[in-house]
Amino acid sequence: MAEKSKILVLGGTGYIGKFIVEASVKEGHPTFALVRESTVSHPDKSKLIESFKSQGVTLLYGDLTDHESLVKAIKQVDVVISTVGGPQIDDQLKLIAAIKEAGNIKRFLPSEFGLDVDRHHAVEPVVSFFEQKVKIRRAVEAAGIPYTYVSSNAFAGFFLPTLWQQNVTAPPRDMVVILGDGDVKGVYVKEEDVGTYTIKAVDDPRTLNKILYLRPPANVLSFNELVSLWENKIKSTIDKTYVPEDQLLKSIQESPFPANLELALGHSMLVKGDATNFVIDSSFGEEASELYPDVKYTSVGDYLNQFI
Amino acid sequence: MAEKSKILVLGGTGYIGKFIVEASVKEGHPTFALVRESTVSHPDKSKLIESFKSQGVTLLYGDLTDHESLVKAIKQVDVVISTVGGPQIDDQLKLIAAIKEAGNIKRFLPSEFGLDVDRHHAVEPVVSFFEQKVKIRRAVEAAGIPYTYVSSNAFAGFFLPTLWQQNVTAPPRDMVVILGDGDVKGVYVKEEDVGTYTIKAVDDPRTLNKILYLRPPANVLSFNELVSLWENKIKSTIDKTYVPEDQLLKSIQESPFPANLELALGHSMLVKGDATNFVIDSSFGEEASELYPDVKYTSVGDYLNQFI
Repeated sequence: MAEKSKILVLGGTGYIGKFIVEASVKEGHPTFALVRESTVSHPDKSKLIESFKSQGVTLLYGDLTDHESLVKAIKQVDVVISTVGGPQIDDQLKLIAAIKEAGNIKRFLPSEFGLDVDRHHAVEPVVSFFEQKVKIRRAVEAAGIPYTYVSSNAFAGFFLPTLWQQNVTAPPRDMVVILGDGDVKGVYVKEEDVGTYTIKAVDDPRTLNKILYLRPPANVLSFNELVSLWENKIKSTIDKTYVPEDQLLKSIQESPFPANLELALGHSMLVKGDATNFVIDSSFGEEASELYPDVKYTSVGDYLNQFI
Repeated sequence: MAEKSKILVLGGTGYIGKFIVEASVKEGHPTFALVRESTVSHPDKSKLIESFKSQGVTLLYGDLTDHESLVKAIKQVDVVISTVGGPQIDDQLKLIAAIKEAGNIKRFLPSEFGLDVDRHHAVEPVVSFFEQKVKIRRAVEAAGIPYTYVSSNAFAGFFLPTLWQQNVTAPPRDMVVILGDGDVKGVYVKEEDVGTYTIKAVDDPRTLNKILYLRPPANVLSFNELVSLWENKIKSTIDKTYVPEDQLLKSIQESPFPANLELALGHSMLVKGDATNFVIDSSFGEEASELYPDVKYTSVGDYLNQFI
């Protein structure tokens, strides 16, 4: 068996980053996390940092603005995965420069982990937000860096515990607000599975210079199907309020940033169907559950069982 | 009387931009709005564009990525106000370059209209988001462009109609969720007043190279005071659920972007008090209601009356 590539994660203490670090360790990759020194001592992060250490993760210190620390970290590994947050997307241009200078990286995964930013029908401010990720894609390609873009669609752990209803701490049992007509298919993937599929892809020649889409069949559901699945579990009917697209667009217009971004992301996936409204062609992408049928992903149905 | 300066607004069809365009017209400034051609024909924007035209606003076509269109637009005016959205903050570096090349601008107001990004106690991802605005401030100063930064704190029209409760369409009458202990002072300013104060400042030597803070006295309230004000109006008591800071920080950690940004902005203003926890010194700033006592701003109390 070929030796497992060494993986460096930037943004490893963030929302999706920690699942990717943990999947990397679990899959047997020597795993490195680049963290700021301020993060290590941060009260909200220290537990996670300790957990990384106990799992055998090598901590490296540095950040996106420190070119020398970046190059030094990159030279120790084979694969770089970035999971930096929304406001740091642009800063990845510095990471690309460092990867180019280091010259040893076999695969780079920039921070994506959402909808496909090259294939969408979103409105502002999502358009401008996606354009930042597009800019990073084009810079990666122009630099000739081998890449995989992971389009993981919606995070189950954020979406399903509330069915994206606000001010609730469990899926609603009385009433639910549904964007559009609720018949558009979305995709909900558990964070641990996003981590596993991502790590599976890093050494796979089939995902080289491709987009890896996460559309596990049991997790491709319209909102009406999602609510119906939940209704069957709780053996009860929930009142449904549908928000027409024009009303949603008005709400987006009338909300300041970042509330408008959140709503416009909902519009893109739940009304426009941007998680599922195109066919994945092998000229540009692969579907994760087809490539890795051995991965026992968590279905939406199983995920919801914890809330019954 | 001196002639009113000519004002160009970028982002004029956005959330706060339209109030600034309208205030500019109302105060008698020849007013220009730079819009993308795609915006003009956009169904959600066409009504607003028509309203601008009927008010006498001159529409110019271009965008931040088109240097020539920017320079050409800038050369026609005296003052540039940017209200571009969150994902376009970084792109203002291009606007700064164009203002520098044009060489005729007497005052530039970059997109701010929130908390003071140089004085805060926020956590990520707000830190990275604010750093983008800080970068723009430093670039403006390095370019020697005369500026005013408007720190307008929270938008009343977004915050007050729901008291920042989700899934409600009016201020709550039964129960309210309060971040922290509710005793920290926030500031809520009606969007029309943000527009008026902003326009008052553009020709004012007292705001040159300063931060203009909006802290109208009747609108500086703790969340407990805000709820109490509302309770007095509806003559009823509301159940209060307090979210301790450590629980809020955990929610921020466990939410993906942009939900974590929204929560962390709430943390900054409502728990850390970043709208009010420092004294405005004339070495760096001025308070708007002190500079312009003639402006009859809308108090929070009056604002809430529409919902009784």
